[in-house]
Amino acid sequence: MTPPTDPSALSRPDDFAPGGAESARVLDAINSPADLKKLPAAELPRLAQEIREEIIAVTSCNGGHVGPNLGVVELTIALHRVFDTPADQITFDVSHQAYVHKLLTGRRGGFFKKLRQTGGASGFCSRAESPHDSFGAGHAGTALSAALGMAAARDLNGTGEHIVAVCGDAAFTCGITMEALNNIVTSTKRLIVILNDNEWSIARNVGAISRYLTRLSTHPTYNKIHNDLERFFLSLKHGPEMHRTWMKWKRETKDFFVESSLFEKYGLRYIGPINGHDINELVAKLEFAKQSDQPILVHVLTKKGRGLPAAINSPEKFHGASPYDPLTGETRKTQAPPSWQDVFGRALTRFARADPRIAGITAAMPAGTGLSHLAAELPRQFFDVGIAEEHAVVFAAGLAARNIRPVVAIYSTFLQRSLDPILHDVCLQNLPVTFCMDRAGLSPNDGPTHHGLFDIAYLRLAPNAVIMQPKDEDELVDMMHTALVTRAPVFIRYPRGAAEGVPIKDEPALLPVGRAEVLREGAHAMIWALGTMVRDALALSDRLAAERGLGVGVVNARFAKPLDAELLLAHAAKTPLIVTMEDHVLAGGFGSAVLETLQQAGAAAAVERIGWPDTFVGHGTDTATLRAAHGLSPDAICARVLQALQKAAPEAARAPLAAISG
Amino acid sequence: MTPPTDPSALSRPDDFAPGGAESARVLDAINSPADLKKLPAAELPRLAQEIREEIIAVTSCNGGHVGPNLGVVELTIALHRVFDTPADQITFDVSHQAYVHKLLTGRRGGFFKKLRQTGGASGFCSRAESPHDSFGAGHAGTALSAALGMAAARDLNGTGEHIVAVCGDAAFTCGITMEALNNIVTSTKRLIVILNDNEWSIARNVGAISRYLTRLSTHPTYNKIHNDLERFFLSLKHGPEMHRTWMKWKRETKDFFVESSLFEKYGLRYIGPINGHDINELVAKLEFAKQSDQPILVHVLTKKGRGLPAAINSPEKFHGASPYDPLTGETRKTQAPPSWQDVFGRALTRFARADPRIAGITAAMPAGTGLSHLAAELPRQFFDVGIAEEHAVVFAAGLAARNIRPVVAIYSTFLQRSLDPILHDVCLQNLPVTFCMDRAGLSPNDGPTHHGLFDIAYLRLAPNAVIMQPKDEDELVDMMHTALVTRAPVFIRYPRGAAEGVPIKDEPALLPVGRAEVLREGAHAMIWALGTMVRDALALSDRLAAERGLGVGVVNARFAKPLDAELLLAHAAKTPLIVTMEDHVLAGGFGSAVLETLQQAGAAAAVERIGWPDTFVGHGTDTATLRAAHGLSPDAICARVLQALQKAAPEAARAPLAAISG
Repeated sequence: MTPPTDPSALSRPDDFAPGGAESARVLDAINSPADLKKLPAAELPRLAQEIREEIIAVTSCNGGHVGPNLGVVELTIALHRVFDTPADQITFDVSHQAYVHKLLTGRRGGFFKKLRQTGGASGFCSRAESPHDSFGAGHAGTALSAALGMAAARDLNGTGEHIVAVCGDAAFTCGITMEALNNIVTSTKRLIVILNDNEWSIARNVGAISRYLTRLSTHPTYNKIHNDLERFFLSLKHGPEMHRTWMKWKRETKDFFVESSLFEKYGLRYIGPINGHDINELVAKLEFAKQSDQPILVHVLTKKGRGLPAAINSPEKFHGASPYDPLTGETRKTQAPPSWQDVFGRALTRFARADPRIAGITAAMPAGTGLSHLAAELPRQFFDVGIAEEHAVVFAAGLAARNIRPVVAIYSTFLQRSLDPILHDVCLQNLPVTFCMDRAGLSPNDGPTHHGLFDIAYLRLAPNAVIMQPKDEDELVDMMHTALVTRAPVFIRYPRGAAEGVPIKDEPALLPVGRAEVLREGAHAMIWALGTMVRDALALSDRLAAERGLGVGVVNARFAKPLDAELLLAHAAKTPLIVTMEDHVLAGGFGSAVLETLQQAGAAAAVERIGWPDTFVGHGTDTATLRAAHGLSPDAICARVLQALQKAAPEAARAPLAAISG
Repeated sequence: MTPPTDPSALSRPDDFAPGGAESARVLDAINSPADLKKLPAAELPRLAQEIREEIIAVTSCNGGHVGPNLGVVELTIALHRVFDTPADQITFDVSHQAYVHKLLTGRRGGFFKKLRQTGGASGFCSRAESPHDSFGAGHAGTALSAALGMAAARDLNGTGEHIVAVCGDAAFTCGITMEALNNIVTSTKRLIVILNDNEWSIARNVGAISRYLTRLSTHPTYNKIHNDLERFFLSLKHGPEMHRTWMKWKRETKDFFVESSLFEKYGLRYIGPINGHDINELVAKLEFAKQSDQPILVHVLTKKGRGLPAAINSPEKFHGASPYDPLTGETRKTQAPPSWQDVFGRALTRFARADPRIAGITAAMPAGTGLSHLAAELPRQFFDVGIAEEHAVVFAAGLAARNIRPVVAIYSTFLQRSLDPILHDVCLQNLPVTFCMDRAGLSPNDGPTHHGLFDIAYLRLAPNAVIMQPKDEDELVDMMHTALVTRAPVFIRYPRGAAEGVPIKDEPALLPVGRAEVLREGAHAMIWALGTMVRDALALSDRLAAERGLGVGVVNARFAKPLDAELLLAHAAKTPLIVTMEDHVLAGGFGSAVLETLQQAGAAAAVERIGWPDTFVGHGTDTATLRAAHGLSPDAICARVLQALQKAAPEAARAPLAAISG
């Protein structure tokens, strides 16, 4: 097979099967890092090539984080040549770039082929999946903190393992990484930080540190002096000791100006930048780092998407890609209805065109959130703050305090980072910040770190907060319009992926805050459904009418806060059963708000709550699979509602196929 | 009056009264910053002295953030000489150091004398309190982000106001500040950052940036070169322009090593360090900063507690002090029972002595949390990570992953910062980290940013979490013991201040997880009380028995999660009314968990939930005042329970003084 850098070589990426034609591959003999260590160095480039082919073969079918993994093939091989997991601990930041690590630590073959599918490898590190995964992740910025904890534990335990944190340059836009960086000098003397510098987070990196790293990587004088010294020390028999002496001299010299690197100010020894695709150089530098008696940062330059031209040309698309054609880079299936994110992005651009006070804010995800539309057309009204969800919210509060109408677009799961700023900077000051939370509900292939199942519970506690979810994309635009004219903090949640396919009105409607919409009346039960669960509620209502002759009404709740208490109490008074449906955990969620409202009014209605149980939902092939696994298949929901009806209105539910008027 | 630096001068600090003897003060003529600007420069030191006297007079009676405010008297005077609030925007980080600002912006006199009391000035900035308070705060690290938002808004609005962020050095241990710092270059060209460097957060500062600042302040070579250049430029007619040219040359020169300041790497011009108690120098440097066409950081050295020897000698105690004697520094009243924090700190030290795997972690509050006991005795098992609540939790997860048993001591309100690490790094990985959350419930004098009223709601959503609250300090130790042997994430909440005064057993008991304790049976109602509400529940039960002859039982719930569902359902089956009592908001809280449990089991019990309503609770003189203001006085609670009983068991509640057996 020709090298994967040549796209014409990838003629049969889907045809890979365990055994068969690929049995001659070097990769197939690697069942653990020990096998990797036995390989002659000359074989490593071939292994790297095979790993790239495997990643392209699998991600082109399953989707996944193609670009980040293609960039760290040599780096990960070098790490496993030099360090001994699971005794040594390697933490990967975000850990979407751990596919190579998985392939080298006993997870190649069928398990990897089912990457991000039910029964297959997770797209992230997971302590439950392998002892080689020292720490799970999914959100950026935690690897350095976790590694520092492990290093401190090692020091307390008196053991000697190496602790390595592999962080992208984007991690350094995130506050947690910077908090950890500030603590290294006081927490341990032995820690190896790999700065995997590819100049991108999901989008191109932003901010001062990114600019600084670019300068560090491209400044000829600095590099030359540095590399000369490095080479000089490494060439000597007692190089490492002499290097230490030199560093000591640097620290002690009165010439303060000599200490130039940002990382040295944080007490780290700095080496690099080095070529992240030269395994020999990587191994040499990692061996050097291994001997350091001071925390050390190795600055590695890598190319995101290396080996797949389409990924190099479209780094943002191939950061986390849907299934694609490896030859052309085309996404395999395109959604018929536009995605929620695109509806949001286009609508916001329209609003912002009409009102220059409107500004959109993203935390490093312009395309994922749909804000790229705004960025392209109205760049002055667009802010990408990097992977900095807390700053994003406080920054938005600052904008709102000065007559700008900020719209913060952060996925439901990432907004977990911002609870404190939401409470104090936005809600306590009652500032009109609009939050648009994509990925509310499941992200099936990504799994527990990406499902947006907690937001109602952690937002509902905030006084002044208004929380909505639209039943379709037309209502999303109505809700955005409503939020932008409401002088309060407003949170709008909506799911990942394709919207409902309904047309969008020319002029958005202003929705009365705290009012629900009755879609269908019903004498036996009323389903209060939030957001896209309205569709499921209507289907359930149809089914119960057809199969059981039951009159089950459906309410589009629209607001999780404030709830339409008046309508709810009216329904509780006249209907034997209230059913709530939400794409959210039951603990403290929408259904819980319904219970609270009924209790507070002293209404004694029977309630059945449908939502996610109190457990972390793993990754899986699709939403239907995961729902079924957690008792939320349409059949299971139907059975639960029937059972509740049997209890609340025995005569109604006991009469199958009887036409009881609604 | 002699200078306040001489303690003997402060012979009558309590005797200050509006008008009277103090009417001759310069301060009394300052009703707005405009008045301050009219004062001859020669009068400013006298004003500074009067402000110090006023702060000492008021805080010695009311308590408050003495040290931080005494340190920024001259700085704040200089700020209001140079800038024009409310047109110009000054954000104060944390804003506990804004007393001087309040005195200069129309809030002196009676309003300030009632500082932190009902009807008086808040201890923090508040947009609702004054237009001169550009942004509210209470938690550290937000001022730079908010100011950056305001600067970006100014640029979008096309207006010209100055934006100034006043940040302590401790703010730079906090991730949000670092996220903002990274974004300055991409967000605006005009921003003034004041680094108020006093080497302390609440405790002495930790970490690399703190060390760096110390070096910056004390390195003679650097200072000399820098000051010489500064002086040189400032002496020239076209100084600012020449300074710009010099900076440009520095950036463009190939001598990379010359760019030395950490802040220059973030794209900020750096000036300082300057004497923060020399008003003339401060005014000159702020005027210079005002003209900068590039974001600029002014490094100001101040002395925390300046003017009060006791505060200088005990900076941590006088960071936020209880009422004290200004002559001796003695706290006015000492608590009879030990505080919750001391019980926690001593117990943890005892556990850690017996088990070297136990480690305590604080985010810059060793004394406030009680961890100072551990720090003093077992420093290797103690970690102060700075104002870095997210890192604290991820770091703890890293420790837990390597066989250490971390105990994270963070106040309830500050733990809001850590929701995402709690979910992903701790609960998803089911790592045995123990969280001890002091200040759960009210911090009456501090107000809305410090009340711990949301933690159950934002933690209860997390699968695997165990949440407890002890009824007294003996049970706190039992719960700590239980947490340390439970292989799960455990959260223990307890209030501020003095504990119940009960003796602590020699050997702690292991509490069965998820089991409540029945303290008193009752036929008419069962009160499920969490934590210290048990005391209120017992009093209510006594009262209802004595006044109404009602049999009201009391359960010490112990666990907010997992709830003792079995016992609860038994009570629901045999008792007409379940009352829940919690020192927490009702939205998503403990009572909500009770409702969910009853609904899930299909139990149709009447429930009355007692807790905080859906509004931000302000500051006030004491807990009783604030409870009464929100319908939570003992009388109000009694009336609500009676009303609920009237509905749930009319015959019982209608029979006053009848002895109905329980």
